[in-house]
Amino acid sequence: MTDRVRGPIVWFTGRPAAGKSTLATALRPALEARWPVEILDGDEVREWLSDELGYSRADRDRNIARIARVACLLARNGVAVLVAAVSPYAAARAQARALATSQAIPFFEVFVSASPALLIQRDPKGMYRQAQVGQIPNFTGVSDPYEEPKEPELVIHTDTEPVAASAGHVVTGLRARGLI
Amino acid sequence: MTDRVRGPIVWFTGRPAAGKSTLATALRPALEARWPVEILDGDEVREWLSDELGYSRADRDRNIARIARVACLLARNGVAVLVAAVSPYAAARAQARALATSQAIPFFEVFVSASPALLIQRDPKGMYRQAQVGQIPNFTGVSDPYEEPKEPELVIHTDTEPVAASAGHVVTGLRARGLI
Repeated sequence: MTDRVRGPIVWFTGRPAAGKSTLATALRPALEARWPVEILDGDEVREWLSDELGYSRADRDRNIARIARVACLLARNGVAVLVAAVSPYAAARAQARALATSQAIPFFEVFVSASPALLIQRDPKGMYRQAQVGQIPNFTGVSDPYEEPKEPELVIHTDTEPVAASAGHVVTGLRARGLI
Repeated sequence: MTDRVRGPIVWFTGRPAAGKSTLATALRPALEARWPVEILDGDEVREWLSDELGYSRADRDRNIARIARVACLLARNGVAVLVAAVSPYAAARAQARALATSQAIPFFEVFVSASPALLIQRDPKGMYRQAQVGQIPNFTGVSDPYEEPKEPELVIHTDTEPVAASAGHVVTGLRARGLI
């Protein structure tokens, strides 16, 4: 396995509705010019990878650990993997990074940032509103913590620029590291 | 994704201790000449993919469905995937095959056969003995069913030939389908 080319893992973390999946989808074509690409979207992946897990910290960590394992299986075989998952706990993200790094897989963490107040105001799926009235328990940003990354490779402010501009920043960051 | 070369999934099914993992390991070098290879071993995979699942039929099926999803993610990106898992229920194996086929991934099912009486006699890890006295519940072949494949691509009799010979049969079968 040691002589295989590794693909990068681009890990998008951020509060619900911050724009992680949208950004991953927008980034995809730029990566496809060089790599086969897979997107592991937190919501979709839960349906088949962790359908029995809830949203306690232990279950969230377990879900993120599984995503990290699948991402590394792909990346170490030359696939670029875009992970779009809230991944609210810094320790779980650090473990994902450590697992990748131990296999010589480039790990590029993107903090998809948007003002919590604005997210609550936008609330495209009505989830924040439901969480605020207690209809969704353990909702990140309302009744569950989100630990902002302290040293991500990149911070993207989706509340102040269009998605194409954000994708452009990620491309620039990946190019600077020779990953695109 | 449509233009990517697919790797094959070689799915080893059989009773506990029939020799699935041993055969997958023996087969690996022959495949590595052409493909990057990953082995998804049922026992190992459970530790990170399905650690909360038990051995009821529902949990077994869920575990096999997850393995199939991960195998397909890899195979559709050009990785040859060797799955070594008891996978006792025909329906779950059929679903794995259907998922692969729907993505144009070659699926090669190998029934690793050994006489139940001989397996109980050998019992390398003492599991059959524990199952017979009720210390391991839901043990395939003792207190849980094993549905033998009716139309696998290949049947291997590990109780009557050495592992190198068995691996040779699999290589011949894969070569005949242009997969090696």
